[in-house]
Amino acid sequence: MIGAAALCAQPASAQYLVKEVGSFHIGGRTVTLDGLPARTIVFSPGSPPVKVDPNGEFDAYQMYVQYVKLERPAAKYPLLLWHGGGLTGVTFETKPDGRPGWQQYFLNAGYDTYVSDAVERGRASFAQYPEIYSSAPFFRSKREAWVLFRIGPSYGNDGQRVAYPDSRFPAASFDQFTKQFVPRWSSNDDATQQAYNAEVDKVCPCIVLMHSQGANFGFNAELATPQKIKAIVAIEPSGFPDLHHVDLQKLKGIPHLFIFGDHLVGPFWEKVHANAHRYAQALSEASAPVTFIDLPARGIHGNSHMLMMDDNSDQVAAIVDGWLRANTR
Amino acid sequence: MIGAAALCAQPASAQYLVKEVGSFHIGGRTVTLDGLPARTIVFSPGSPPVKVDPNGEFDAYQMYVQYVKLERPAAKYPLLLWHGGGLTGVTFETKPDGRPGWQQYFLNAGYDTYVSDAVERGRASFAQYPEIYSSAPFFRSKREAWVLFRIGPSYGNDGQRVAYPDSRFPAASFDQFTKQFVPRWSSNDDATQQAYNAEVDKVCPCIVLMHSQGANFGFNAELATPQKIKAIVAIEPSGFPDLHHVDLQKLKGIPHLFIFGDHLVGPFWEKVHANAHRYAQALSEASAPVTFIDLPARGIHGNSHMLMMDDNSDQVAAIVDGWLRANTR
Repeated sequence: MIGAAALCAQPASAQYLVKEVGSFHIGGRTVTLDGLPARTIVFSPGSPPVKVDPNGEFDAYQMYVQYVKLERPAAKYPLLLWHGGGLTGVTFETKPDGRPGWQQYFLNAGYDTYVSDAVERGRASFAQYPEIYSSAPFFRSKREAWVLFRIGPSYGNDGQRVAYPDSRFPAASFDQFTKQFVPRWSSNDDATQQAYNAEVDKVCPCIVLMHSQGANFGFNAELATPQKIKAIVAIEPSGFPDLHHVDLQKLKGIPHLFIFGDHLVGPFWEKVHANAHRYAQALSEASAPVTFIDLPARGIHGNSHMLMMDDNSDQVAAIVDGWLRANTR
Repeated sequence: MIGAAALCAQPASAQYLVKEVGSFHIGGRTVTLDGLPARTIVFSPGSPPVKVDPNGEFDAYQMYVQYVKLERPAAKYPLLLWHGGGLTGVTFETKPDGRPGWQQYFLNAGYDTYVSDAVERGRASFAQYPEIYSSAPFFRSKREAWVLFRIGPSYGNDGQRVAYPDSRFPAASFDQFTKQFVPRWSSNDDATQQAYNAEVDKVCPCIVLMHSQGANFGFNAELATPQKIKAIVAIEPSGFPDLHHVDLQKLKGIPHLFIFGDHLVGPFWEKVHANAHRYAQALSEASAPVTFIDLPARGIHGNSHMLMMDDNSDQVAAIVDGWLRANTR
């Protein structure tokens, strides 16, 4: 126990009174396997070998959620932070260069935070394949990340990395960033959606801030339970519900913020960006207020896909926080 | 920002002033793959298909460490919490029944905490096999966990779970516990040890509290850098350095606490328990002070292998905290 006197001594900006740090798993189901041959495993050096039965009941398709609850949150609603593809909640923690990330920023700003690992990633765990998952995992190489995440235009076969001259990504810490990578499967979207929906049911009303691949899950969760969603912040969303198959009218009044960075060149990003504007326009026509920020149009240049890791990430977070203060009540 | 007045309003026992919540990955190396055929993947529904090259540079063998640093820690040294086999740092977070776990307990007690995921587990991620890892993962079934973790003597083919009559494990939350499981490999011990040693180099001086399979890594880290280790807490350690190949004399003066629960029946647990007493005896002979607690001998009955999740886990944590206060300076 820390005494009250110590607690009250000159709190600085990076200090906040925490009620609880905790976590839970949610969603998923039990899968039973049988007919597989036995294995023998030594769990620790020197420990006796144990014959194990690979058959039995296993959990699959659950997700992991970690929260930090403040004693006196200044924000009315908690902030759920949903990561993108091939990544985990670590996206929002300390940045690859060691500076505080968006989790820390929004805790300082007075939000309870819920940082999660989607089904199959990180602490959510994956399930065995082909016995349970129908496909094999895909691992993202450093080269693919460098170019796809728009840190720079090229990454040679010799490992030579060329960054955009105005890049805001901390390129010297790129190898620290790539240690955060986890593999992904392309066959688990339905289960992932169900788990996210279960998180919303449990935790919200709330604000959902989602990145890249996570955004499509957020848009669908919003459509599943619009009354639970107080605001949506889509950071470089890469996928969207099919406008022919959803009713955006039920999102009337829910404020939406879209933010995109710089260097949206090439067919992939041009199409993603056009899709985002099309979805935003449809939201707006359905009376769901939309703020769409293309950072370069505001004179903010050089941002990568990993906005929350760029060296001006606090500036972008401040835009998000200011917008939330103005648009949630 | 939360005002100082709010921060100082009647702090209760589950409140502490946090300086920073953060994380880092440490250890590991880059592995280069080539010669594998290309794949095409749709990353999000509706997003354009992307042709991906499975070749390139990948990170492998790093581990993940998450910390909560208090503004004014009452304890002189941070507490590193190392999980056991088939699990992650979630072991020490909120318990399966929703009550606070040991991370929360020791934060309340004034320790900075470092909760990690070992190489291959959780947010540390795993690397592809057979291309990088040499073996396939092993998944623990519910049945194996029920019996191996000594929640009860039997788990029938019909899923019927029989708990020990005096079991302290929250059996009604067993299915929540099993959602925490992650697979393990038996081929990564050297890399795991290197990553743990790197964590100690970066974070310590410190206290290491380790569970089950994690204990062998802790004993070896201690031998690698004894000057960094202020105390060792071994919760049901399952593996030990080979006494013929290590010099325990260098651990002179480092205090060690061993704790075991109940129902240590059958050849596996009888051998583990005997090995623990043998290692403790050798430490003691090398002038490393040892406290060995068999909880039943103190009248505390029914504890499972997951002491930090049992319904008397706070009682066990209080024993650890009291011992640390008396034995570290």
